[in-house]
Amino acid sequence: MSTALSSGPLRLGLAGLGTVGIGLVRMLEREAALIAARAGRPVVITAVSARDPKKDRGADLSAFAWETDPVALATRDDVDVFIEVMGGHEGAAKAATEAALRAGKHVVSANKALLAHYGQPLAELAEANGVALRYEAAVAGGIPVIKSLLEGLAGNRIKRVMGVMNGTCNYILTRMQSAGLPYETVFEEARQLGYLEADPNLDVGGIDAGHKLSLLASIAFGTKVSFDNVELEGIGNVSIDDITLADDMGYRIKLLGVAQMSGRGLEQRMTPCLVPADSPLGQLQGGTNMVVLEGDAVGQIVMRGAGAGEGPTASAVMSDVIDIARGFRTPVFGIPATELADAVPARSATPAPYYLRMKLLDKPGALAKVATALGDAGISIDQMRQINQPGEDDGDAIVLIVTHKAAPADVEHALSRFAQTGVLVEKPAAIRIEEL
Amino acid sequence: MSTALSSGPLRLGLAGLGTVGIGLVRMLEREAALIAARAGRPVVITAVSARDPKKDRGADLSAFAWETDPVALATRDDVDVFIEVMGGHEGAAKAATEAALRAGKHVVSANKALLAHYGQPLAELAEANGVALRYEAAVAGGIPVIKSLLEGLAGNRIKRVMGVMNGTCNYILTRMQSAGLPYETVFEEARQLGYLEADPNLDVGGIDAGHKLSLLASIAFGTKVSFDNVELEGIGNVSIDDITLADDMGYRIKLLGVAQMSGRGLEQRMTPCLVPADSPLGQLQGGTNMVVLEGDAVGQIVMRGAGAGEGPTASAVMSDVIDIARGFRTPVFGIPATELADAVPARSATPAPYYLRMKLLDKPGALAKVATALGDAGISIDQMRQINQPGEDDGDAIVLIVTHKAAPADVEHALSRFAQTGVLVEKPAAIRIEEL
Repeated sequence: MSTALSSGPLRLGLAGLGTVGIGLVRMLEREAALIAARAGRPVVITAVSARDPKKDRGADLSAFAWETDPVALATRDDVDVFIEVMGGHEGAAKAATEAALRAGKHVVSANKALLAHYGQPLAELAEANGVALRYEAAVAGGIPVIKSLLEGLAGNRIKRVMGVMNGTCNYILTRMQSAGLPYETVFEEARQLGYLEADPNLDVGGIDAGHKLSLLASIAFGTKVSFDNVELEGIGNVSIDDITLADDMGYRIKLLGVAQMSGRGLEQRMTPCLVPADSPLGQLQGGTNMVVLEGDAVGQIVMRGAGAGEGPTASAVMSDVIDIARGFRTPVFGIPATELADAVPARSATPAPYYLRMKLLDKPGALAKVATALGDAGISIDQMRQINQPGEDDGDAIVLIVTHKAAPADVEHALSRFAQTGVLVEKPAAIRIEEL
Repeated sequence: MSTALSSGPLRLGLAGLGTVGIGLVRMLEREAALIAARAGRPVVITAVSARDPKKDRGADLSAFAWETDPVALATRDDVDVFIEVMGGHEGAAKAATEAALRAGKHVVSANKALLAHYGQPLAELAEANGVALRYEAAVAGGIPVIKSLLEGLAGNRIKRVMGVMNGTCNYILTRMQSAGLPYETVFEEARQLGYLEADPNLDVGGIDAGHKLSLLASIAFGTKVSFDNVELEGIGNVSIDDITLADDMGYRIKLLGVAQMSGRGLEQRMTPCLVPADSPLGQLQGGTNMVVLEGDAVGQIVMRGAGAGEGPTASAVMSDVIDIARGFRTPVFGIPATELADAVPARSATPAPYYLRMKLLDKPGALAKVATALGDAGISIDQMRQINQPGEDDGDAIVLIVTHKAAPADVEHALSRFAQTGVLVEKPAAIRIEEL
């Protein structure tokens, strides 16, 4: 076999000694023999970099050479694979990744932001230099979803990729639902539990999950990563009312990423969606991640697992390292980077049923006006319910509508017509129901 | 990259033109360009074999050379990869697979029975000849579970592998549950629907699923495939009573494969088990498959998808072909075959709670005798219920017991003591509750 032990140890340069970096150190300490057997050669860390060499990180790092500059680490002669678990999509992470690739080092990265922004030039650089750039840990933590899409489903024309890929958002939404608490309260809880990024908008604004979706979309559809074209809507406007009412109708609200290719182009959405409560996505609780891959031949594949944390992320990084040790050289996004197509963005072109919640003035004909506005926009109604909210005696009516499949543009059109009816007490909520 | 187009087309010899074989022909017809882009080179079928060259199979096969003998196909000069989708674990399939490996051809096989029986010598032969032997399609159809275990979780010490891997059995069990029908009736339905193998015992006896489990166990634990050590119990004795009563207590009955390594050795079980009704395994309906992989670092990964059929199986075969085209050379079971350990079989050593259903004579002290027998066997009771079955007025009592965790040997001991109590109307049912 080509992975004979005679090829000597595979030497890692580890940039970043946070949770994930230390997880890797521990994994190699604990399972050096097992990993060597599977990799076909020993895997060793030769050098590390972090800002403060003196900090106690709870692991013995004395055997490794130290660099304070990750660029210096990335280009060391005794490093074959540069492991980037520093984070940040500019500055040092980017410079060191580029330096590594230029120096002919393989790179394993957990940095979804960097890849979402610079995936295309980095892939071209890697392939021009004949080295691997792998990033299993960048998407859905320990779930081997990059591998499954890039390799396991490589015989399929991919129809759609979906995922709940930000554990913090899913924690917040499921906690709101189970405890009946408003967003602001649970957000604050999550902050105190340390679940949120330093910039919480990366989580609750859907940016982190959007980064991940853009990587999956590139592999799935053979297009250049185009994070800028991801339609992003975070969970900050998801109300406890909608969660409760959706639940009554058999749905759950998830921050769901969807990428699909239609005749109009590539749709990438990371938005709150309704999904059936009894579906695998609907039943996903807490911080767990789930990815759904749909191929023309294979049908629907659902994968579930931990989306973050020391162990799951280290597991993903190590699988990339072992693949490199075994000699795998898959193009970064499945086909050579120079052959990836430009993504033609199609903003939410695919029709879907919609959930609409609106508060109407207690006026004769109010409901008829709303129904007419929907009809004028070409949207037909599947279900309508009027809810009398206990304790609210203002005479206003809460009306819930589930539409038949409607084009997103038609829904926007209907919402603008609603505003002209003069019967709405407040801006209506409109949430896509993703069909599984 | 090493997979440059200059290396010329990868030439497949396809043995077997049933559903899967024709599915592959159609996939390559439909997606030749996509597959070539991903594989880094064109993938073409050059020759095929099947018994009857004249049969109309609904696909144009005129471009392919024909062989009636698969051994002749396997050794043709114009074949780089031998694709075995014939089935059968002796005779032609075995001879052709061996011939291909000896001739230095890569082999992609969907043949779980062949690999379960001869995985070790075939892996040694493949590795001695420096060629790949891959079998994603042999386990759980289109779910990329072999790849996930072999590569995606390669940094983990695997703790346990579980799976519902026979769609027919899961169909029968879920149909019994939803329709309240006895086994015999649903078995007959399944037969008429064409869901059963020619020898139904392969399905309902758990043999097919046991083959699959033995392959997963080998990868997971670095041991030689040892199908003979799989503890097999089919679904033929699962009664509708147990399904209904388990349901009342929040459980579903599944034909569940479990492989785990303990200090006592390798346990491999393919037996009916209770699982929580609200768990992913409990919610698995119909013919779908599910595999659960548990690693020390990654935690629990759950994968769900179609376990059979033209498209899913062709998808799995093609992913192996593309891996070969890309130059991947992983040892067949993850580490070199000559380094795989002999599996020390440990028959159901791991303790678990058990569900016990027994019918007791209407005698004073009957229940006490049963409880005493359990206590004498060192088993404590978690829940006990007495059920009065409507319409049965024979005075006998149905007693359900859920035990605390108990060693399987202690449960067997208790069951033998029950027989001596003289208060049992019939043989009790004892079903393991697998903890997830």
